Amino acid sequence: MATTTLSSSSREVTIGFGHPFVMIGERINPTGRKILAAEMKAGDYSRVVADAIAQVEAGAQMLDINAGIPLADEPAILAESIRRVQAVMDVPISIDSSIIEALEAGLGAYQGRALVNSTTGETEVLERVLPLVKKYDAAIVAISNDETGISEDPNERFKVAKKIVEHAADYGIKPQDVVVDPLVMPIGAISQAGNQVFELVRKLRSELKVNTTCGASNVSFGLPQRSGINNAFLPMLIAAGMTSAIVNPLHPELVQAIRAGDVLTGVDDGCTKWISAYKEPLKEGENPREGRRRRRA
Amino acid sequence: MATTTLSSSSREVTIGFGHPFVMIGERINPTGRKILAAEMKAGDYSRVVADAIAQVEAGAQMLDINAGIPLADEPAILAESIRRVQAVMDVPISIDSSIIEALEAGLGAYQGRALVNSTTGETEVLERVLPLVKKYDAAIVAISNDETGISEDPNERFKVAKKIVEHAADYGIKPQDVVVDPLVMPIGAISQAGNQVFELVRKLRSELKVNTTCGASNVSFGLPQRSGINNAFLPMLIAAGMTSAIVNPLHPELVQAIRAGDVLTGVDDGCTKWISAYKEPLKEGENPREGRRRRRA
Repeated sequence: MATTTLSSSSREVTIGFGHPFVMIGERINPTGRKILAAEMKAGDYSRVVADAIAQVEAGAQMLDINAGIPLADEPAILAESIRRVQAVMDVPISIDSSIIEALEAGLGAYQGRALVNSTTGETEVLERVLPLVKKYDAAIVAISNDETGISEDPNERFKVAKKIVEHAADYGIKPQDVVVDPLVMPIGAISQAGNQVFELVRKLRSELKVNTTCGASNVSFGLPQRSGINNAFLPMLIAAGMTSAIVNPLHPELVQAIRAGDVLTGVDDGCTKWISAYKEPLKEGENPREGRRRRRA
Repeated sequence: MATTTLSSSSREVTIGFGHPFVMIGERINPTGRKILAAEMKAGDYSRVVADAIAQVEAGAQMLDINAGIPLADEPAILAESIRRVQAVMDVPISIDSSIIEALEAGLGAYQGRALVNSTTGETEVLERVLPLVKKYDAAIVAISNDETGISEDPNERFKVAKKIVEHAADYGIKPQDVVVDPLVMPIGAISQAGNQVFELVRKLRSELKVNTTCGASNVSFGLPQRSGINNAFLPMLIAAGMTSAIVNPLHPELVQAIRAGDVLTGVDDGCTKWISAYKEPLKEGENPREGRRRRRA
């Protein structure tokens, strides 16, 4: 049973088989958000902080933070975003960058045990990222592609994941601290994209015994009524055995679909979390404020 | 590859692996609907007809018709309901009764190839229902319980299903004309109810190679915000390999979840059905009127 334990200075979150599915809030990411990008670049973190609070109140158990802004000092901005968020929110953080200096700055600023997002299976990337993960005793998201690209064959992607887990072990990083991203492709372009991921997640869970995560919304890219696809995809991923995902928790129906997935796989035993969240009917555009209630109590 | 072909006098519907999931509209059922029950008993079929039209317009590819009204002439009412519905709608019908005389009257009135709902694995029931199914060249829903009740062990329920398929073969009914209902129990009472069904559906599909159906909404019995559980359950059932279900198609989010399930398992190849149904955003309380459009075209 793989359990990946992440923490802030005061709160621990476990990604694992038999544990509630972990929603990692995706909103703090300047990609495609011009205003947020401009503010972050100018040193204004008010929206970063507001997004952190809103996502946790909406149900996110972790937050992803990305500061990938062209021509900006990404290491400094990522580190400062992390400090600002940790000043107001105690959920563990996924530190998201493809730049090694930014990951290092983020890890240096972070209080607790972080999830590093991410490494691929490319040897050069592994050899830069894994030593850092070990140095800071973090966990790592492992994306199942390598120098040859993204295979449409789940068995090939499984081999890449296995290679990353083995490389991580060489650096003293345990398999349970490698969270594999099976790579979700757009279903509009590849009709087997869903089946590929379901098969890969099952195999990663039963054979490699690792946790999994993904950027789920990619599946609906280019289609109308994307939320309808996304809301169905998450329960299907949970049924296949996925244990976390990077999602937008500000969509109440998506959060509800994930919680229903936990109910229907027996993880929410006695349906206690479901009943607590939904004993009052869901109002349009409103999330059950479980987080807020808990803090007020 | 199991394919169960049902028909009306002018339309054929296939339940099968690789085919779109078949929604069987559940609304024409007087159980718990006092007004409908009183009307049907009094010979007023206007609501039956209206319910048939509304469900097909909302996306149902088949309709279940039940006339189980205490102290009423169920055979005559069931037969008349079928005649009235067939006069206005051309989808195949699932003839739903636990009374053999009602099934016979319904089959006698029906134009086309019906689905008989249902037999259990109880020998006495099998020996009454199967000859009728053979006589009218119908298909049959097989509920996976027997004299010993409903087992919580998916392997026991699989054995019951296998027994029914074997008995059906003795009567000259092909396995592809047996649609197994794995029996959905309330998740609020049995936390493994979902996992039991997922496992059983996978096994029925891979080993017995039969189609499956269920009364899906039973899973959320007793819980708040039932639609949230039901909307997640259907995509999970589809991922497990279920090929049809008896549902309420008047819930647009449920219909959308089922269609998303078809997209995500690659059955809606090229997402053509999805795009056609949802190119315009879904409005609150409204179903995409695919059926109506098709008839107008």
